[in-house]
Amino acid sequence: MHEPQRADAAAHPRTVGDLGEDAVLGRILPRLRAGDAALLGAGDDAAVVAAPDGRFVVTTDLMVHGPDFRLAWSTPFELGWKAAATNLTDVAAMGARPTALVVAIAAPPSTDATVLEGIADGFREALAVLAPGAGVVGGDLSASTVLTIAVTAFGDLEGRPPVTRSGARVGDVVAHAGVRGDAARGLALLFDEARDAAGEPDADAADALRGRHPALIAAQLAPAPPVAAGVAAALAGATAMLDVSDGLARDARRIALASGVGIDFSAAALGPDARLALAGAEDHGLLATFPPATTLPAPFERIGRVTDAAGELFVDGAPIDAVGWDPYSGWDGRAG
Amino acid sequence: MHEPQRADAAAHPRTVGDLGEDAVLGRILPRLRAGDAALLGAGDDAAVVAAPDGRFVVTTDLMVHGPDFRLAWSTPFELGWKAAATNLTDVAAMGARPTALVVAIAAPPSTDATVLEGIADGFREALAVLAPGAGVVGGDLSASTVLTIAVTAFGDLEGRPPVTRSGARVGDVVAHAGVRGDAARGLALLFDEARDAAGEPDADAADALRGRHPALIAAQLAPAPPVAAGVAAALAGATAMLDVSDGLARDARRIALASGVGIDFSAAALGPDARLALAGAEDHGLLATFPPATTLPAPFERIGRVTDAAGELFVDGAPIDAVGWDPYSGWDGRAG
Repeated sequence: MHEPQRADAAAHPRTVGDLGEDAVLGRILPRLRAGDAALLGAGDDAAVVAAPDGRFVVTTDLMVHGPDFRLAWSTPFELGWKAAATNLTDVAAMGARPTALVVAIAAPPSTDATVLEGIADGFREALAVLAPGAGVVGGDLSASTVLTIAVTAFGDLEGRPPVTRSGARVGDVVAHAGVRGDAARGLALLFDEARDAAGEPDADAADALRGRHPALIAAQLAPAPPVAAGVAAALAGATAMLDVSDGLARDARRIALASGVGIDFSAAALGPDARLALAGAEDHGLLATFPPATTLPAPFERIGRVTDAAGELFVDGAPIDAVGWDPYSGWDGRAG
Repeated sequence: MHEPQRADAAAHPRTVGDLGEDAVLGRILPRLRAGDAALLGAGDDAAVVAAPDGRFVVTTDLMVHGPDFRLAWSTPFELGWKAAATNLTDVAAMGARPTALVVAIAAPPSTDATVLEGIADGFREALAVLAPGAGVVGGDLSASTVLTIAVTAFGDLEGRPPVTRSGARVGDVVAHAGVRGDAARGLALLFDEARDAAGEPDADAADALRGRHPALIAAQLAPAPPVAAGVAAALAGATAMLDVSDGLARDARRIALASGVGIDFSAAALGPDARLALAGAEDHGLLATFPPATTLPAPFERIGRVTDAAGELFVDGAPIDAVGWDPYSGWDGRAG
């Protein structure tokens, strides 16, 4: 059996192991744009990227099959989209305009090459929609038993100071742009209704859920965070800002601790399920504070105010605990 | 058994799963320097890095347990060192001075926190030795069943054009800085003499090899590439350059194809085992071409000349094939 299989693989290469690195790159690179900031793109030891104001913003993130995504639930396109979107939001949360990404992917040699093509398509489209002009300037392909996507994203502050977590002042307006709790609702639906009898992710059930709850499933699998609102917030004078990846409460507490202030949420602004809005992770909205008289840039909404209770959180004046997601304690490697 | 174990883990947290992300970061970050280029370091959504000439060089790379390293052979310190060194060399190969790294690590929750501390120490020391002034400006911690290290490295071209692979000219001198074949010799020793009866990597046997063959084992597990020679080559007028990661022949062919030239190696310069010098991967030396009259900067040595036989390789005028390493076809996930 062995030799005929090899001959067939050579005639009709399908997996990344059959194709080898150069052929896989040859399929991926034409699907990507290097973007406007690329002075030298992929193909050499390193890329060269424009940083017009003499600085660049940089953030990096790993997405791992199991704790961060399941191929039975996410399409390859959604994986690439989400990997791009979440990193672009981290750049936006500094008040920067995203300029470029580098992407490193480790895949089992048995991975069908169309999976990597789909991931590349997702990156391209997320960039086109969320950060027009930005592109993928370089990357790396490796082998692993676990599909892993490492993204590093860059941004341009356009001469402005970065908007950090430490600048919130007592009396500031607390504002949020993006969905609240939808990504967690989508994940709960997938866990509750898209697993088979053995508890394993089920692709057909996930497809059915996409039809019934398109917004919630998209919020989890292919989020569309308000990337452009990051620059708008900076221009409007935001005093502090961050990407809400671990839940509104947990991330608000980070601003509270870094700035030495308290944050008092308005229950009415959080909506009917305030607890989910505060605890739900992975929404990737932007949480920012603004001087009181600021006209908030769209799509920011006022959701609370900054108080003098350093490091503390409240809802309508009543203290609450921060809750959220930890990559280690939230996943044990056995439950998957 | 379950509750007492939990109580013990809480009292004496040891693994990254026991400790959680914030506590692990609290152990790692004090071991790292942000470096001279860090305008805003770790702790926010993104870092801000200086790019004085309005551009930055960027390269990214994944190291995965199994295909790229074995914890039974490499110490955590060596892993961090090698991950830093190989990425710094890619920056150097553009003729740039390394300024900063970001590091994302995915580790099983059962990983002892001292493993991540050792990796951080390796990063710090490799930076201090190979690229003084450069530091780690940010990162990410994730969970995975496979220990994975993703590094993205940055460099400053200091106003110079990047040295790409495409600038070699007929008549140029071909020069190399670094060891040739030592990393492959070290890997062969580990495969031949540091595996147990079942073929699995054996830590004690690797330690014994370190004593008997320190230079060859270090070349594989903790290489010290000539990072500073990258800027020196650019200043001396190098016309093309790259990092020799996949073997001298395979990487020389990349210059030959990109530049539309041939490369004729001198057998005498390659040493007694020319075949290993040409084929051995992971040495991470710098291969560069220079105008004929150039005084080569140390530690570059002349190893050949550029000819007009586009895309072809020779040794003393006799054609040779390019051979080297492919991340997929070189590793099948079963042999480990």
